[in-house]
Amino acid sequence: MGFWKTWFSASEAVATPKTTPFEETSVEATGNSSPSSDALGAERIVFSTERDIDLYELEELCDAVGWSRRPLRKVKKAIEHSFLVASMWQVRGNKRRLIGFARATSDHAFNATIWDVVVHPDFQGKGLGKTLMKYVLKKLRSEEISNVTLFADPHVIDFYRTLGFMTDPEGIKGMFWYPH
Amino acid sequence: MGFWKTWFSASEAVATPKTTPFEETSVEATGNSSPSSDALGAERIVFSTERDIDLYELEELCDAVGWSRRPLRKVKKAIEHSFLVASMWQVRGNKRRLIGFARATSDHAFNATIWDVVVHPDFQGKGLGKTLMKYVLKKLRSEEISNVTLFADPHVIDFYRTLGFMTDPEGIKGMFWYPH
Repeated sequence: MGFWKTWFSASEAVATPKTTPFEETSVEATGNSSPSSDALGAERIVFSTERDIDLYELEELCDAVGWSRRPLRKVKKAIEHSFLVASMWQVRGNKRRLIGFARATSDHAFNATIWDVVVHPDFQGKGLGKTLMKYVLKKLRSEEISNVTLFADPHVIDFYRTLGFMTDPEGIKGMFWYPH
Repeated sequence: MGFWKTWFSASEAVATPKTTPFEETSVEATGNSSPSSDALGAERIVFSTERDIDLYELEELCDAVGWSRRPLRKVKKAIEHSFLVASMWQVRGNKRRLIGFARATSDHAFNATIWDVVVHPDFQGKGLGKTLMKYVLKKLRSEEISNVTLFADPHVIDFYRTLGFMTDPEGIKGMFWYPH
């Protein structure tokens, strides 16, 4: 575990010395936890709140799940002005690959709203989406945010329910307005 | 109109020279528009995006609609970290009274979420809530926000519908998570 932590911390220290607002990454092993998983070729799943994400790598991840492309200039701005940016990485040796992402807007006091939750298709069905969301919720909770919201597409409503999210509590409805 | 604009601009210039991110207030007359409404005793409804709102005055407004009290320290933080803070004032002579409020969190790029929409009961039923919301939407639109969301209590869902908000478009559900 030490190796990966060192690797990752060093990476963060170089990349975003000032903009990382939260404590260091948490590290979780997945799948094979045999002794060999500590060897160099082993795989780790690493979570981070660093903001200095390669926008092309993020675009590739979003492409993989079929999202419409968005101007990178706006994506950059959105990341800069998100309260929380959470990323999930597959780490192998000294290489890392972005395999999950989520971010949240917030007033830093009462409310946070989670946007752009994505897990690469190759890594879906392993419970990693849930782990990523728990990481996000832990971070938001540590900032004393008491009301966490999101807008869920129909096919992921049950996924969020298993994490404790409720639809329309006390009849409260999520509503959308688009420019016309 | 000139008098009020002068009065209000001067007030803003003193109070928040640096923190007002949007152009100056828009001014709308309500009710009686007879010639006498330009006299000193006349009433104007004024909208502003200034952030330097008296927290006690805001608390009084929220009390008036029966909201639970919140720590002013957190309200202050939430206002500071909102993307947009909109307030509605009754102006009479050189006095002004806070009669409406709304704020929005945002990633400054794609999404904004509107919170804490309130109109003083004495001023409800006159279309002012709608005017306040149109002011908010105009401001968000001018910042190129393409997706405006909110969470509506059951009794105001129809109100927001008249403004063009939709519930659950394409089955998308607003979901809530509370710490446990």
